[in-house]
Amino acid sequence: MSYKTILLDINDSVATITLNRPEAMNAWNPAMSRDLGHALAALDKDDTVRAVVITGAGRAFCAGADLSGAAEAFDAENREDVRAALAFPAVMPYQIRKPVLAAINGHAIGVGITFSMTCDIRIVAEDAKIQFAFVRRGLTPELASHVIVPRIAGLSVAADLMLSGRIINGREMARLGLASEALPAADVLPATLERARDYKNAAPVSVAITKHLLWQGLTASIPEMDDSEFTLFQWVCCQPDAAEGVISFLEKRAPDWKMSASKDLPDLLGDPLP
Amino acid sequence: MSYKTILLDINDSVATITLNRPEAMNAWNPAMSRDLGHALAALDKDDTVRAVVITGAGRAFCAGADLSGAAEAFDAENREDVRAALAFPAVMPYQIRKPVLAAINGHAIGVGITFSMTCDIRIVAEDAKIQFAFVRRGLTPELASHVIVPRIAGLSVAADLMLSGRIINGREMARLGLASEALPAADVLPATLERARDYKNAAPVSVAITKHLLWQGLTASIPEMDDSEFTLFQWVCCQPDAAEGVISFLEKRAPDWKMSASKDLPDLLGDPLP
Amino acid sequence: MSYKTILLDINDSVATITLNRPEAMNAWNPAMSRDLGHALAALDKDDTVRAVVITGAGRAFCAGADLSGAAEAFDAENREDVRAALAFPAVMPYQIRKPVLAAINGHAIGVGITFSMTCDIRIVAEDAKIQFAFVRRGLTPELASHVIVPRIAGLSVAADLMLSGRIINGREMARLGLASEALPAADVLPATLERARDYKNAAPVSVAITKHLLWQGLTASIPEMDDSEFTLFQWVCCQPDAAEGVISFLEKRAPDWKMSASKDLPDLLGDPLP
Repeated sequence: MSYKTILLDINDSVATITLNRPEAMNAWNPAMSRDLGHALAALDKDDTVRAVVITGAGRAFCAGADLSGAAEAFDAENREDVRAALAFPAVMPYQIRKPVLAAINGHAIGVGITFSMTCDIRIVAEDAKIQFAFVRRGLTPELASHVIVPRIAGLSVAADLMLSGRIINGREMARLGLASEALPAADVLPATLERARDYKNAAPVSVAITKHLLWQGLTASIPEMDDSEFTLFQWVCCQPDAAEGVISFLEKRAPDWKMSASKDLPDLLGDPLP
Repeated sequence: MSYKTILLDINDSVATITLNRPEAMNAWNPAMSRDLGHALAALDKDDTVRAVVITGAGRAFCAGADLSGAAEAFDAENREDVRAALAFPAVMPYQIRKPVLAAINGHAIGVGITFSMTCDIRIVAEDAKIQFAFVRRGLTPELASHVIVPRIAGLSVAADLMLSGRIINGREMARLGLASEALPAADVLPATLERARDYKNAAPVSVAITKHLLWQGLTASIPEMDDSEFTLFQWVCCQPDAAEGVISFLEKRAPDWKMSASKDLPDLLGDPLP
Repeated sequence: MSYKTILLDINDSVATITLNRPEAMNAWNPAMSRDLGHALAALDKDDTVRAVVITGAGRAFCAGADLSGAAEAFDAENREDVRAALAFPAVMPYQIRKPVLAAINGHAIGVGITFSMTCDIRIVAEDAKIQFAFVRRGLTPELASHVIVPRIAGLSVAADLMLSGRIINGREMARLGLASEALPAADVLPATLERARDYKNAAPVSVAITKHLLWQGLTASIPEMDDSEFTLFQWVCCQPDAAEGVISFLEKRAPDWKMSASKDLPDLLGDPLP
């Protein structure tokens, strides 16, 4: 598969997706949405990949939806083009069975920032311009950001940024809890890759179950989560990678995981991706 | 309409409600509750108002429920007066279709702090005394603060402050994520007004929808929110203010919003306020 | 009742539970789980105790599940021993009717950290090693941590730590919102005890109700919480401790609480503990 709007590189257990329309500040368009959905689905099934990093080519991460044809589209009676321009990827970062990290190397605006919020964590450039710009364009935020942003940084941080559309920088983004850390732009991708490579120390099946429970558990009560965890924990305890994990720890050696997130997850985790 | 316990001023797209019982540190009483509910309902319908600021006259924001008649009330067999003294406003800040900002100029205690937590954001005086005093009075917190405070600042911050009733200052309030920032007392209202005036750059209908989804979405799952957002996004895209928002952005000029939060919201947002 | 794995001390309204297997860094085993459940149930019923502190003997808080027999257990066909080693306490800190504070004096790993997250607040030693180690052992987190950790510190902090199993120190734990504060190790227990003693200024029945609503309210909407709070508030207002709380405040004297969290809670709070 070759992609038109993204680059895909796999190295040392980490897949790096680079949004690759630098001439347009990596503005989001329907092709990019399709490419991202396809790449995430493929990486979900690739057991050599233990974590995925998403970054941007050039100076921006993603400047938002591509509005180059917007003036014409909004003038037209049929607004299909407008809606299509903001299509969702068929597979989202929180749906795949391994961690997804956003390396926000520069500006992240509109869908550029909401898409990054659907990743597990974010590292951001200190001087990146961050803006939930929607309300300043007469639009409204998407990608479930009305749920996801409050769950990451609290209801008032979400209300502050999403109701105003005001611009903050990467330092402020980290201070508000929307990013794990803010770094000089040149350090963002190396630091994210270093974190991503570390996931090979974790058992793929354990990571997949934990990620599933975290993202699916947003509306669970404590007793409901106890039930889910307990069933899965009982299953996990009887698998070879639990033995390998505990015994390698006792033997003070690196674990040699045998199980696969794509093949060995229990049925009770539900259907695989489309 | 004239109010006995609050002042109402509208200027440059911002309404300022001032709790105005400075001789009693703006202690909350049934009249204030009625006045606040009435003013919020009226401001909700006033399209010239794009944001609401709530502050206190004099040195305090609100010192809590007015307990001046409490000794007698608690001695009586019928405690109706006690309950009435803590009546809720008929309309709450999170129910109106524009941002509400609390400018906590001084002490905020009991209902003074819980009421501020029902606003979208708070700016607080560095030396203000902040106290969820309820458990130290043999009472329990109200105004849905058992849900709202954890959603703003996390379960443990809520447990810390609400189970102990301990006093913190404004700096600590901001550090714990309960306020957007802490400033010298004299700067609190000017800084809040400056933020409030900025909301005129955002489309009123977009702000109303986003605010609705944030506050109504506390218990939504990601798929449920995707559904709500998508329906509303499709509607928004076909409205004149989306065209104006995008085209004004491309033309690098200020938007001239045409739509009204009081008249032009889609039916699917549900009933207007009482 | 005498315990084999914990020490129990009651002094000045505070019960201190000390995990007491210092030769094994207080590693968790089935006996400790039983002892903790039993002690928490007993302290729940003891009205002289107004808050509970949990800490560790020696240099560690709790180094995780005792894996001393794990190599044999994982080699066996029957993994009952593995599961039993990770049994839950019959009563959890969030279920008892008074605040529970973790004084994390040193390393907290695996169940050592997840158990501490089921307490109301945590104070941690600056240099303590903190690790949600599960995924690095081929296991998955338990004790409802997939719900509780995100509710305390946000979804991304939980994803960061729980998906990677990476080690942080106490300073980082506090910075990420997982602990109220980080202190030099020697100061952790004294500071936690000082906080714990302060709860006697709060009415026991008020504290029990507020704790119940906070922990049971994780999945409540604002209208649902308004209903619960209002019913309980009406009840509380008519109780003797509300009168004592308000009148002692007006008289500027310490309150003399009369009501008991073990005997005087309203039926609507639900069943007592097993």
